[in-house]
Amino acid sequence: VTSAANATVKLLRSLERKKARTESGLFLAEGARLAEEGLAHGWRPAHVLAGAEAIERPKLRALLTRLRDAGARVLTASPRLLASVAKKDNPQTILTAFEHRLSQLDAWETSGPRLWVALYEIRDPGNLGTILRTADAAGADGVALLGPCCDPFSIEAVRASMGSIFAMPLALARPADFTRWTQTAGARVVAATMQGDRRHDEAAFGERCVLLLGNEQVGLPAALEAAADARVRIPMRGAADSLNLAAAAAVLIYEAWRARGFAGSRP
Amino acid sequence: VTSAANATVKLLRSLERKKARTESGLFLAEGARLAEEGLAHGWRPAHVLAGAEAIERPKLRALLTRLRDAGARVLTASPRLLASVAKKDNPQTILTAFEHRLSQLDAWETSGPRLWVALYEIRDPGNLGTILRTADAAGADGVALLGPCCDPFSIEAVRASMGSIFAMPLALARPADFTRWTQTAGARVVAATMQGDRRHDEAAFGERCVLLLGNEQVGLPAALEAAADARVRIPMRGAADSLNLAAAAAVLIYEAWRARGFAGSRP
Repeated sequence: VTSAANATVKLLRSLERKKARTESGLFLAEGARLAEEGLAHGWRPAHVLAGAEAIERPKLRALLTRLRDAGARVLTASPRLLASVAKKDNPQTILTAFEHRLSQLDAWETSGPRLWVALYEIRDPGNLGTILRTADAAGADGVALLGPCCDPFSIEAVRASMGSIFAMPLALARPADFTRWTQTAGARVVAATMQGDRRHDEAAFGERCVLLLGNEQVGLPAALEAAADARVRIPMRGAADSLNLAAAAAVLIYEAWRARGFAGSRP
Repeated sequence: VTSAANATVKLLRSLERKKARTESGLFLAEGARLAEEGLAHGWRPAHVLAGAEAIERPKLRALLTRLRDAGARVLTASPRLLASVAKKDNPQTILTAFEHRLSQLDAWETSGPRLWVALYEIRDPGNLGTILRTADAAGADGVALLGPCCDPFSIEAVRASMGSIFAMPLALARPADFTRWTQTAGARVVAATMQGDRRHDEAAFGERCVLLLGNEQVGLPAALEAAADARVRIPMRGAADSLNLAAAAAVLIYEAWRARGFAGSRP
């Protein structure tokens, strides 16, 4: 296609808006690497927009074939059209619209040692994507989004996740349902808060643990903090009065994994 | 002022461009909190653009007086003009142009226990700002930028630093000069690399330590890696093949501080 009026092009272009993502159940993944990750984790690609030069490169052509086999309709487009959909000057050579996939807390496997991350009212998609990437790198079992959060399927969140959006089980839940689930699952909730009564590295994380972090501006609500099994604070000095949320999550997730001797890490 | 043609307004507006920042030696800090931080750390404010409603709020008026006393020329502007300079719809009530301030590695205090962070060819201003904030929170003594890096005085970097740009001594250096300085200072260089021969939590950080991290895409150049006293890797599992640079820095900085028993942390 060369025309911006094409219905699929219009659809893909609309996916920058949350409303269009919700209505279509689709989101955009930029580039060949993300498309590979999506396929590798069994996500369903609905549409692919590929630059005309993509079909001349054997590796990309093979990827397009696999995307087609997985159900995608593949359109080739001019670089200009691709740039207009991607909203940037040097777009990736392919854009893939995948179907959303969310899991339910109740469906999460709870036997054996487990590490989950729960985020309450996280607002910044870059932070969310980065936390998905960190959770994935540390072998976490899933990320729960509690209350009204930013959209994990926004282009910024997907981009910052560097493919981990496809690897990390993701559940949306109401705080009350989350608390009920942690009790049923026998999961210990370790909440990060400025008012924590012990340092994050002095916490007992237990065999099944949820690391709970709050909103960028206001942290956790009192009820969720009170329902946690432990409240920890990350030490601070200097002029900064807090850490960036994704940095705090990285410190906490790696501390919890360190407490388990970095079990399962790649050699 | 109400006119976008005003010379000061033109100057402030130009500060989104690196060239204009370099030529004027100025950069923009958004909002009252950053202006307070700048003043608290003795940075020189050159210009302030304040929303008309700012001068009616006692606290903001007092801040404007202090900015004026510190040498700033204060202009009041309409919300629309403020929004046009800040390039966003809901701008902060004041914008301050501060003078750049960089230090020289050779001027850094090297007695007693020290922790520094060095970043080679960091490219993302959000990462840089976040790392400044994390380094500040962990009480680091300074951040060195090696080779061609993104501009620490860009609006994105300043914003992500949440004021730590004013608190953290910042030096630009050529890699060779950095290596010479570490030898003179008796600083142990601990480099983060995927090829590290030990885990980051098994490193000896020593009394004076520089944590060295590389570019987002390609990491550290071989020469800098080879010159380091230790090469460490942050453990990974899952599908992610790396951490976000600011997340990796947070994990490493907090591990180095943990090795010192989180000395100096606020109670």
